[in-house]
Amino acid sequence: MAADEVGAGTAAGRPGRVTITDIARRAGVSVPTVSRVVNGRSDVSPRTRARVEELLRRHGYRKRAAAPGRRAALIDLVFNDLDSPWAVEIIRGVEEVAHAAGVGTVVSAIHGRSGDARQWMLNLRARASDGVVLVTSALDPVLHQELRVLGVPLVVVDPAGSPALDVPTVGAANRSGGLLATEHLRALGHRRIGLIAGPPRLLCSRARHDGYRAALDGAGVPVDESLIVPGDFRHASGFAACDTLLDLPEPPTAVFATSDQMALGAIEALRRRGLRVPQDMSVVGFDDLPEVRWSAPPLTTVRQPLADMGRTAARTVLRPAGDGHPDPARLELGTDLILRSSTAPPPAAAAASG
Amino acid sequence: MAADEVGAGTAAGRPGRVTITDIARRAGVSVPTVSRVVNGRSDVSPRTRARVEELLRRHGYRKRAAAPGRRAALIDLVFNDLDSPWAVEIIRGVEEVAHAAGVGTVVSAIHGRSGDARQWMLNLRARASDGVVLVTSALDPVLHQELRVLGVPLVVVDPAGSPALDVPTVGAANRSGGLLATEHLRALGHRRIGLIAGPPRLLCSRARHDGYRAALDGAGVPVDESLIVPGDFRHASGFAACDTLLDLPEPPTAVFATSDQMALGAIEALRRRGLRVPQDMSVVGFDDLPEVRWSAPPLTTVRQPLADMGRTAARTVLRPAGDGHPDPARLELGTDLILRSSTAPPPAAAAASG
Repeated sequence: MAADEVGAGTAAGRPGRVTITDIARRAGVSVPTVSRVVNGRSDVSPRTRARVEELLRRHGYRKRAAAPGRRAALIDLVFNDLDSPWAVEIIRGVEEVAHAAGVGTVVSAIHGRSGDARQWMLNLRARASDGVVLVTSALDPVLHQELRVLGVPLVVVDPAGSPALDVPTVGAANRSGGLLATEHLRALGHRRIGLIAGPPRLLCSRARHDGYRAALDGAGVPVDESLIVPGDFRHASGFAACDTLLDLPEPPTAVFATSDQMALGAIEALRRRGLRVPQDMSVVGFDDLPEVRWSAPPLTTVRQPLADMGRTAARTVLRPAGDGHPDPARLELGTDLILRSSTAPPPAAAAASG
Repeated sequence: MAADEVGAGTAAGRPGRVTITDIARRAGVSVPTVSRVVNGRSDVSPRTRARVEELLRRHGYRKRAAAPGRRAALIDLVFNDLDSPWAVEIIRGVEEVAHAAGVGTVVSAIHGRSGDARQWMLNLRARASDGVVLVTSALDPVLHQELRVLGVPLVVVDPAGSPALDVPTVGAANRSGGLLATEHLRALGHRRIGLIAGPPRLLCSRARHDGYRAALDGAGVPVDESLIVPGDFRHASGFAACDTLLDLPEPPTAVFATSDQMALGAIEALRRRGLRVPQDMSVVGFDDLPEVRWSAPPLTTVRQPLADMGRTAARTVLRPAGDGHPDPARLELGTDLILRSSTAPPPAAAAASG
């Protein structure tokens, strides 16, 4: 099924590999017509285009293997938006690998709007590209299909963790990150540890949450559901969730915020109440954005290897087709706990009962 | 002089415009040899290359005007390093304008190393480029010369403010930003206002410092030199400078840190001493990096319009040659004061004497 299709055209020169002539014969059209579809030209009727594209897709046709020597010396790095604090780290990693390979990195933002995606696709067709690194948790099926027909390798960098993309994906080990953060708080003596969770529709949220539960289970600490508060990874939700935790009859002595922005929101909520971090409450984040080195206090957090994710994705798209490396469905890079100044043992009273 | 040379080849088709044939005649070499130099090929002796490049430069030869219809549909955005918190804002602005013009943005980092700059130049020559936006305060003269010979328009985005680049430059109004920050503190009632200065070799440091002095002069407050402490725009120097100010016999009640990172360092130094911002001391920064919305407390700061600077630079390089707009030597975009929560009137005792 999906996995077979991805594999079908990968090895250049493989016996039985489908050609434009085969597709033309099956579609009952001329070879130039198939070529026009493959090259994204507009002088083909919509009906013919649909029939040819369906055949190209079904037979796993890939343009690239037909001209293995030609290189555009460019790869594309596509974001939904460039206002995420993640973006620059990923750009840095992709650019580093591409630069070393003598390849330029074209950075685009498509703003989740189909018009912008279309414009980007036209630009890409006009100049060619050796590969596309897409940073998203929502892959547009039309774009995916067009890239496949053009034979441009695609890798998705997906910090959020999405299920079932049928392209190679580079993510981070979210569950073990959640485990590390929670075990660290437990080792300091905390027993009442709050969780500020992420959106449940994202796999990464569920994986970080699972890591939290696994760490408490492993330490024989029962999970208190009142200490688990939802958030959306943004600052304001961390602020509100921390307020909710502080209003409990028995607030936690530590909180694991599953994004750095929510951790900074929690610290601001504590500051507004005159509470000190870490003396009155410990806070751990997740991401290790550059700025949390400079938060007040500097944040203990789980490092997502964003630049490494970019480097790995760039290496994957730049790898020659058919080099014998299978494309993994999903590659997860390891996460580390970075110890700074936002965690400490619980205040004396809570420690006594811990 | 320098300005004449920049102007010489700008208008395509202008009478007396120098051609490759002219250059070949003057250099006493063949037209293909000049063409090889212009196209950056290696099969030319170093002596011939030097002679031809000197003539190309002297006569303001520009390749681009010779083929005005051809477009690469790419512009280059070149940073020294991609680890600056500024980078993503500038990328966002450049990409937005380029994308709307159907042009891709190739992002590169040359790490201030000549090998990396050379590699980027080779890549650019292999694929062509419609223009280069260079983000730096130190323009490599060799790169500049090569781009001029290739006829690729160049604009420098220079948040730091460098003197005497003979290319169009986009910067920010640093002096008026320093004035705004200091006048704001003065209007709150502060009379002892510390300055954490930037490196004196950068024009932007001197301009922000000038703005500080002008605001105090305007308010009839004498400048106390002991309240002016040097820094290097980085976090650690802001931390150390704030410590120096706090160790004075009579510390200031407010501080203007001339970069956001130094302002965050100052806030951390205050926090370590158990002092509160803004109750015990007010802090104003400069830059408005995205993360200072989320500092504790959210930072009052001077906004550098980084994305606007990127937009302006992209529009300048994408403007058709010879459209009648003169290239300004230096364009300064306005700065604004963004009020958040890190400033307040001075503590009562100081206010009484203010």
